[in-house]
Formats: sequence, structure tokens, C-alpha cells
Amino acid sequence: MKKLTQVIESIKPSNQKIKAKALQRLAEQARPAGSLGILEGVGAKLAAITGTLDVSFNKKIIITCAGDHGVVEEGVSLFPQEVTPQMVDNFVNNGASINVLAKHAGATVKVADLGVNFDFSPDMPIFHKKIRKGTSNFTKTPAMTRQEAIDSIMAGIQIVEELVEKEGVDLLGTGDMGIGNTTPSAAIIAAFSGITPSQLTGRGTGIDDDMLKNKIAVIEKGLALHSPDPQDPIDVLSKVGGFEIGGLAGLVLGAAAHGIPVVCDGIISTAGGLIACELAPNARDYLFAGHRSVEVGHAFMHKRMGLEPLLDLQFRLGEGTGAALAFQLLEAATRILAEIKTFEEVAIQNAQKK
Amino acid sequence: MKKLTQVIESIKPSNQKIKAKALQRLAEQARPAGSLGILEGVGAKLAAITGTLDVSFNKKIIITCAGDHGVVEEGVSLFPQEVTPQMVDNFVNNGASINVLAKHAGATVKVADLGVNFDFSPDMPIFHKKIRKGTSNFTKTPAMTRQEAIDSIMAGIQIVEELVEKEGVDLLGTGDMGIGNTTPSAAIIAAFSGITPSQLTGRGTGIDDDMLKNKIAVIEKGLALHSPDPQDPIDVLSKVGGFEIGGLAGLVLGAAAHGIPVVCDGIISTAGGLIACELAPNARDYLFAGHRSVEVGHAFMHKRMGLEPLLDLQFRLGEGTGAALAFQLLEAATRILAEIKTFEEVAIQNAQKK
Repeated sequence: MKKLTQVIESIKPSNQKIKAKALQRLAEQARPAGSLGILEGVGAKLAAITGTLDVSFNKKIIITCAGDHGVVEEGVSLFPQEVTPQMVDNFVNNGASINVLAKHAGATVKVADLGVNFDFSPDMPIFHKKIRKGTSNFTKTPAMTRQEAIDSIMAGIQIVEELVEKEGVDLLGTGDMGIGNTTPSAAIIAAFSGITPSQLTGRGTGIDDDMLKNKIAVIEKGLALHSPDPQDPIDVLSKVGGFEIGGLAGLVLGAAAHGIPVVCDGIISTAGGLIACELAPNARDYLFAGHRSVEVGHAFMHKRMGLEPLLDLQFRLGEGTGAALAFQLLEAATRILAEIKTFEEVAIQNAQKK
Repeated sequence: MKKLTQVIESIKPSNQKIKAKALQRLAEQARPAGSLGILEGVGAKLAAITGTLDVSFNKKIIITCAGDHGVVEEGVSLFPQEVTPQMVDNFVNNGASINVLAKHAGATVKVADLGVNFDFSPDMPIFHKKIRKGTSNFTKTPAMTRQEAIDSIMAGIQIVEELVEKEGVDLLGTGDMGIGNTTPSAAIIAAFSGITPSQLTGRGTGIDDDMLKNKIAVIEKGLALHSPDPQDPIDVLSKVGGFEIGGLAGLVLGAAAHGIPVVCDGIISTAGGLIACELAPNARDYLFAGHRSVEVGHAFMHKRMGLEPLLDLQFRLGEGTGAALAFQLLEAATRILAEIKTFEEVAIQNAQKK
């Protein structure tokens, strides 16, 4: 098995020559220059990733990574930890939001247990990648050891490798499930950006003002206690992160290493994407921001990664729901690039008709 | 044939009882309350229109209304008027942006000539609804007579009636083509809102600062010369509007009268939607804003109609492109409402498995 450093080194910039060709074709199409807005850049980016101007996706997969968080002891979430395994069940039984929206987008949902505080049956059709049954409470000790952080990232990379080999995945979306996981996500962007938690912390599933105040204090306490090093993304992940967030980072690294476009969802899956991009800046060439959620920290992550979210529907759910919806916009961008005729093609067509 | 006033009177509010049921189901689903953002309201609105919680669309049609504008004499557009019929050709030949994006959304494109300055062959497979070969230059005389304004609206209504009867259309999108037509559109929202043209006028297909200054002066001149009465939408349409804009208003009225959801596209098609809603406020119950374009006046229209745009992709194209992309979000909203399981449904499923 490759080491993490080898995977990181293997991520090369996408093909800028093809990107230039794509942008030229878009500029020559029979419509005002730039009139299809950000979907033009999306099409060109996809061309650069895949090496063709006629991009198509035949195997779209959303991977929902689940994990639990010791920090829920501090009262940062409305929901009890038992909801995490219940929702994993719901995903497997096809009744959850992500199942519905992935189906709508023609995509398959796969679930990965990175660290749920529950013993799933080994027969359950999920990726069994449990690092530990929930992180430690980061207001007391680091969320995980450095080795656990690396293992969680490697688990994500291994999932992609398996999906490439066995399923031929060519478009990947990332999603999350884990009660309390907006707390480590806000802590992660605070650690990298130096912006204070009070500016970055949102209401998660819908906590009130008092709980929000407490959540901010919890994040401040964790950051003050461990001083995660923003130059060392593994350190950030291990001290204030989560196992599913490590897995989500691994998905992005794995996709980038295999030249597969990958779409992030909400603040948790984007926290994973952020760690991936801090480890391997070239990964940004392969990464798309599916949507902007109502979590305030999300926009700071997108800004740091230089990504423009495709949708802004005021979602605050996770699971991969926003990534699934964004798949349809990525596919629209591929059709725009490949199928809208250039002025020259229109002229040729007209000449042939005469 | 019905008169315009009869059509307007026939537009009733949508079914608020079904809407309440839809909102209740959404609130009971196994996810945090409100977590699917504005798509929840979209699903409930569609339920209210169609009278069911399991909405589906089997015949989706985009109608692109074309017309020319006398005001192009004043140098308000980068493109010459000849482009309008060329693009109608391109639509019919399936090579334009709207053809590509409608196909992506599983929708059909139909084109309607409301007032193009060109004699199309009567065999051309479009709706032949020409009022006149282009409006008059509204800096000199009203764009059209009051009767022509009514006729253009009635033409849109007739198109919907034909599509209901012959094709069973159940989801309608509106789009436009007409060189110069952001100018009357900005004039229309200025006339209704009283906001000055300098705040409302955009760059259309990409004019520079000098041309923008001229475009604003042209709109100010037209409004000063004719003083369109904001209490009388037909007066506004006739004095500073366009034939395709009247047709687009008729499409919205026709759809609302038949209980069919209708999605507006950019600033021109939304100008038509605005006129429809000023004539028949109940039409808002049936109307969706597909996207927010970069044209500054567009947001003022949405605000006046109380509509929240679904997409914000920095488009400035028209043709119906943003409406087509929004179709997929409307369909996602129907699946969210119908398919995501409630906590109760999840519990029943679990009980059955044991």
C-alpha cells in the first residue's frame, strides 16, 4: 500500500492545455462571451481533469462518511449521538435525504463508517473503516492521535481505490453524517484561517443562542488547549477534527490522485476537502464546491480554497445532498462545452442546408 | 375565444390546504427541520399548484419567445437586429444553448415569433404569432398600440392552450430572444417600481460604460415621454415593452389559468412574468424564478414579485437557459417532498424488519 506522502506527491496539476482549448471553444460559441457564467469555468475545469472536451460521467457515486465525536459531551448539538448509527441504517435502507437526491441525480450512495460509536454487523453493506468508536472530547485531550488521523485519511484513499478498481467511478461526491460534527469543522477552519470561532461558528442542526454561545466557547477552549499548527494539516485534524473528516479528506486526495472530479457538500465534507487541499494544493484542480450552506464557516472554507459554490439553496443537512444536486450542474457544464455550436459550426450547418 | 379579462379572472389562488399538508410532511421527515432550505418551499408550492404530494412532470416544455425592438436604433445593443432571426433558426436547428440545456433537463424547446423583423417561412416549425415586425422606437412613439399589447399577451395564452390540449404540457419554462430586449425590460421594472433607470439598467450582452450611459438615457427618455401608468400594466407594456415580453406575460397567465407551474428565466422573461403578476396577482402562486442573472434589474423584479431565484450562476443569456436548469431543482423538490421518509415511516420500516 502507498503511503500518504506518496499519494500526496502523485497529485499533479490538471491538464492546462486542454483547459485552454475548452475556454477557446466556449468563447467561440454562438452566444455572448461569458454568458453562461460560472458553468463555463466548470466545464473547462472538468475538461482539464478528464483530458477531453466531451466529458461524460457513467458512474457517479456519493460517499457518505460517518463518525462520532467526543465533544458532544459538551452539549454542542440538539441531537443525541444515537442518531448517527440510526441515520447510517436509514442510508442503507434507502430512506434518507441523500438516497432521494442521489437517485434524482442518477448517482449511487455508498456509506462508510470511519468512527461511529456503535458496532455495526460486519454483513452491513457499508465500508467498514472504523478507526475508533468516536473521537475524544477535544476540550480535554486531542480528538485523536496523529496515527489515527493518518489512518482516517488513508481509509478515504482506500475507498476511492476500491471504487475505481471495482466500479469504475468517474464522478465522486462527498457527504457526512455525525452528530456534533459542525463543531470540529468550525474548529478546523478557525485553526487554518486564524479567524475567531465567534465569526465562524454556526447553528448546526438548529441550536439556540445559548447553545451557540457554548459551542463557540467549546471550540475556543479546544484551540487554546492544543494550539493546532496550521502549517501541519495532520496536526489540525488530530487535535480538533473527526474520523469522518479525515476520511472525507482522503476521498478528495484519492480522487485527485486518480484524476477524478470530486464534489464537496456542506461544511463537514468541505472541512475534509480543506485538509486535503492544505496537504496537496494541486487537489484544488479536481475539487468542486457543490453548494454554500447556511453554516457561516462554510464560506470561509470556500474562500480559502478559491472555490465558488455552484448552488445556494440554504441547505444545512449534509449527507452529500448538496453534492448530489450539484452533479446535475456539472453535467450541464459538460453539455454546454461539448454541444453548443460555435459560430463556425452554425455557418457550416447553414451552408450544408443550402 | 376568451377575453384577456376572463383569463385573468379565472386565475385562482393555488390549493393552500394541500400546501399545509406538504409543509407538515416536510417537517416530519427524518432530518433537521428546514434543512433542505428553499427546496422545501418549492415542493410545497408545487403541491399546492398540482393538488398532490407526489408531483411528477411528464411533459416539460420551454417556450422561447422572439421579437425585435425599434429602440435598437438608439445603439443600445452590441449585436445587430439580424441576429434575432438567425438565432430563431439556430433554435429550430437544435444548435443553441437552450436546446442543449433543455435536452439536459429532459425538456422540449418550442419557439414563438411574436414580432421578429423577418419573414419566416410559414412552414417553419414555430408558433407564428407575429404582431408586427418589431416594435416602434419608444424614444419617439409608444413601442406598440394598446391593442397590440393585448394581442401579444393573448398570443402567449393561446400558445399555452394549444400545448395543454395537444401535448399535455405539465411544466412550462419561459425564455426570450430579441436583440435590444434588456432595454424594454429595464424600462418596465423602472415604470412599476419608480426606481431610477440608472439603478436598474445592466450591460445586456456586454456593452461598455459609454453604451451603458446611453442605454440609461434612452430608457429615461422613453419613460419621460410616455409616463406609463404603473397601475395599468397594459399601458406599461404598450409604451415601453416588447412583443415577446407581452407573449411571455401571456405564457404565465395561461399557465396559471390552467394550473400549470411556470418557471421564468432571465430579465426579459421575468419582465413578462412581472406584467402577468401585476395583471393577476394570483399568478404568483404558479410562478417560479429560475435564476438570478447578472442584469441588475432582475433582482428588483424578483423582489417586487416576492420570488426567490433558485440558481445564481451569473448567467446573462436568456433563451430559457436558466429556466431549463431550474427544472431539475423543481423535480428535486418534488422528490424531497414525496420520497424522504418521515420519522414515523422509518420506525414502521424498522419494525417490519424485526
